[in-house]
Amino acid sequence: MPSRRRATAAVTDHRTRVGQQRRERTRARILAAALEVFAERGTEAPVIDDFIRAAGIARGTFYTYFRTTAELLVAASADLEDRLMVAIEAALAGRTDPVERLATGTRLWLRRARDDRVLCGFVIRSQLRGRLVEETLVKDLRAGHRRGAFRIGTVAVARDLVVGTIREAMARMLAGPVPRAYPDQVAAAILQGLGTGGRDIRRLLAMPVPVLTGEGSAATAKGPSSPA
Amino acid sequence: MPSRRRATAAVTDHRTRVGQQRRERTRARILAAALEVFAERGTEAPVIDDFIRAAGIARGTFYTYFRTTAELLVAASADLEDRLMVAIEAALAGRTDPVERLATGTRLWLRRARDDRVLCGFVIRSQLRGRLVEETLVKDLRAGHRRGAFRIGTVAVARDLVVGTIREAMARMLAGPVPRAYPDQVAAAILQGLGTGGRDIRRLLAMPVPVLTGEGSAATAKGPSSPA
Repeated sequence: MPSRRRATAAVTDHRTRVGQQRRERTRARILAAALEVFAERGTEAPVIDDFIRAAGIARGTFYTYFRTTAELLVAASADLEDRLMVAIEAALAGRTDPVERLATGTRLWLRRARDDRVLCGFVIRSQLRGRLVEETLVKDLRAGHRRGAFRIGTVAVARDLVVGTIREAMARMLAGPVPRAYPDQVAAAILQGLGTGGRDIRRLLAMPVPVLTGEGSAATAKGPSSPA
Repeated sequence: MPSRRRATAAVTDHRTRVGQQRRERTRARILAAALEVFAERGTEAPVIDDFIRAAGIARGTFYTYFRTTAELLVAASADLEDRLMVAIEAALAGRTDPVERLATGTRLWLRRARDDRVLCGFVIRSQLRGRLVEETLVKDLRAGHRRGAFRIGTVAVARDLVVGTIREAMARMLAGPVPRAYPDQVAAAILQGLGTGGRDIRRLLAMPVPVLTGEGSAATAKGPSSPA
């Protein structure tokens, strides 16, 4: 009996796991389709049917994941913001200096936002309130604050300066063209606000910016689980 | 004939002017009533009838000014932001040093936002995109940049740092309580970001903050043209 019970439990575990993986795949598929629909037709025009058609799923299936297009838009935007953060994290792999990570991460983020206005619009919409941004950014700010690299009141104030300035810069880049130097000027202003000295800022901005893989782009956001 | 034509023109001018003044009064009356309704019942629940009743106007009159509650909310928020800016301008009257104006104006703005959460919520909603904020802030930033007081790439970058950081700080203060020192810490971070030196920052933050008159408060926003 005990062994049979164990076997039953194992089968149940397996089923639960498979079910959860399937739900995650379906959710990712809907989000990927949603990004394409929103990017193509704007955020006001599309109706639920458009997303159902693009994702190739049944109406009932859709409603088990999202109730309104507004809810879907928020989720798709947050998902894209998380993807961008994952891509930046990958590009920063191996770098441990929190000031360098912040400087290079900010430069990567702002360049991608400048070069991909669709992505920029989505990420502004998610308010830069994604879990990953908070975790990664605050970790670096805390590490820099602890070792005295950031001379600023508290980590909370540092976070508000970084997130607020980036968000406003994205709004500007979404509204129209900016000078070529603008993203790095914004990164320099943020570093100065955190208390980084002029010589360090120049050194950090002279560093080459690593290449981002496509995951951070709205155009390539569909990934393998999206309908062909 | 010419004199009669002039008289007719004068009457027309007078009528136009009176008509415009009346329209402005009615619009202000609707906005003041709207702020009270939104502040009391939230931004989602109220319907057009609530605003019509609070303003004491006819339905047809309402629709010549605003088509939707969303449109009214945007206008009421922008109006409140403008009032706050007017109150801060009045408190800064006579001060000409752009760095001092920026430091004291930022401290006033953040304190008022901390002490009046209703106002804070409205002003965040208007995105700090009001005409008055842009005009006043950019004028001071330009003056400071010209005389070398702000060491930052461009006036546009300086503006994005100031507006973005203030906006994010307001979002934090709206979400929950902050330490007593938070508004001044944010002001210090902004000044540091603009390139103000540590000694100057300490001097500016040691200055007394002038008193704001009631105009910047949501609670006193109704003014004389609102229904009793």
